[in-house]
Amino acid sequence: MQVIDTIAAFRKALDGERAAGRTVGLVPTMGYLHDGHASLMRRAQAECDVVAATIFVNPLQFAANEDLSSYPRDLDGDTALAAAAGVTYILAPSVKEMYPSEVLTSIRVSTLTETLDGASRPGHFDGVATVVAKLFNIAGPCRAYFGEKDYQQLAVVRRMASDLSAPVEIIGCPTVREPDGLAMSSRNAYLTADERAAAPRLYQALQTGRRLIEDEGESDPAVVRNAMTGVVTTEPLFTLDYAEVVDAGDLTVPPVLAGELRLLIAAKIGRARLIDNIGATR
Amino acid sequence: MQVIDTIAAFRKALDGERAAGRTVGLVPTMGYLHDGHASLMRRAQAECDVVAATIFVNPLQFAANEDLSSYPRDLDGDTALAAAAGVTYILAPSVKEMYPSEVLTSIRVSTLTETLDGASRPGHFDGVATVVAKLFNIAGPCRAYFGEKDYQQLAVVRRMASDLSAPVEIIGCPTVREPDGLAMSSRNAYLTADERAAAPRLYQALQTGRRLIEDEGESDPAVVRNAMTGVVTTEPLFTLDYAEVVDAGDLTVPPVLAGELRLLIAAKIGRARLIDNIGATR
Repeated sequence: MQVIDTIAAFRKALDGERAAGRTVGLVPTMGYLHDGHASLMRRAQAECDVVAATIFVNPLQFAANEDLSSYPRDLDGDTALAAAAGVTYILAPSVKEMYPSEVLTSIRVSTLTETLDGASRPGHFDGVATVVAKLFNIAGPCRAYFGEKDYQQLAVVRRMASDLSAPVEIIGCPTVREPDGLAMSSRNAYLTADERAAAPRLYQALQTGRRLIEDEGESDPAVVRNAMTGVVTTEPLFTLDYAEVVDAGDLTVPPVLAGELRLLIAAKIGRARLIDNIGATR
Repeated sequence: MQVIDTIAAFRKALDGERAAGRTVGLVPTMGYLHDGHASLMRRAQAECDVVAATIFVNPLQFAANEDLSSYPRDLDGDTALAAAAGVTYILAPSVKEMYPSEVLTSIRVSTLTETLDGASRPGHFDGVATVVAKLFNIAGPCRAYFGEKDYQQLAVVRRMASDLSAPVEIIGCPTVREPDGLAMSSRNAYLTADERAAAPRLYQALQTGRRLIEDEGESDPAVVRNAMTGVVTTEPLFTLDYAEVVDAGDLTVPPVLAGELRLLIAAKIGRARLIDNIGATR
């Protein structure tokens, strides 16, 4: 495996692979890799001839009050995990390498970014869409892999790629969970022991919502929302940001729950802001 | 030459060319081609193995009060001109083909788009940047050719491509003029005989500005602006939009004129809004 820190060298390596007729799968990450990332890499390895990953904590997608400076990093651990998961090339560029001058260009995906995490984190998804489009231009993948853990991000990336006719297939992969149900996340590293013990409450709230819909036939989004909210807020360590049930495709709240739905939660606990989601069908 | 109306078929043709090791040059246009476009195509033919052109009157870059519906079209004439200028593939898609569903994604290049035509045509350059990024994704060119006639557009496209690491070299080509100095433009077709006779006044105004800077050493942008304004406004058929002298790189008005400069003018005459620009050095 090669760890590369310049765009030019990474592009040259992948140009060579493509020129030799090999397909490239891309796994964009912010590093501090865990088994969720490894599952994306293994999926890419199964579907593509060569797997490239990027490790870049992208300043564009952090607001001034967020955790850019404290975001966890471990390049040695990341390279070991990525190598074991089948990655051949890692691009781990500096901010200066990615953004040598002021970034004037921004990509916005309207509508999809105006609710949920988009409402809580203004500009976040502009930063995501912009860096992902740039990484697509740099890597030229035929497939790119994103976790469903960041469900709204996946929807934004899918729409950006479709609207802009990016020559890449976007693959969403299932969330990987700890044995107690907590969704794997680099930000779980922020949790104290007490917070870590309380954290699976988010997944429990999502399961409560799904049971209401699938087992009890609940069709009122407010009832589902309130039930999930109740499960989270009885844990005093949590400060709920949102608990919502939306159409799985366009992320709008339907007046009557029907078809493919997605339940999503975001909450703060200690230094961490955690998000999670699951699907439901009615 | 092949005229293709679907993205998939155009992409497949160019994928085949690239797979055979041939470089692709792209000339994006809105059609109603003239010798200015032909000069871009001939330059592309000289520098690339295969030349692809696109003909698409992009609704995203027209405001509601602009000339989208009346923009001149002549696909038969365009194909003849393009074939003679060395084009192998033309993509001439419908609006439905380019934008099958609502376009939620928009690319904005800040700062560069806030003055001159960007101020007069809000959202115009967002539409340009968005469609050009999409055309780059569709065609996968190694070089793309744009006229200096649309100088601010060229600056916006350059910055977009650079910020997003698009794997394409942006080539700016000199404006092609009629014998009396009028810059070639598809919108010249709107001009009546009287308006056409008056139209070279824009180029004369630009030359007046350049003479002030280069021959008389004028360093005050207001003096140059006023001189150009005077030349345009003495022709009553014109309604001046702007006459400005800016830094050729970042398009800002310098307090003291120095280095590589660009003089730009926009004015309405009859149904047409014409733009033109030239360089100057001090």
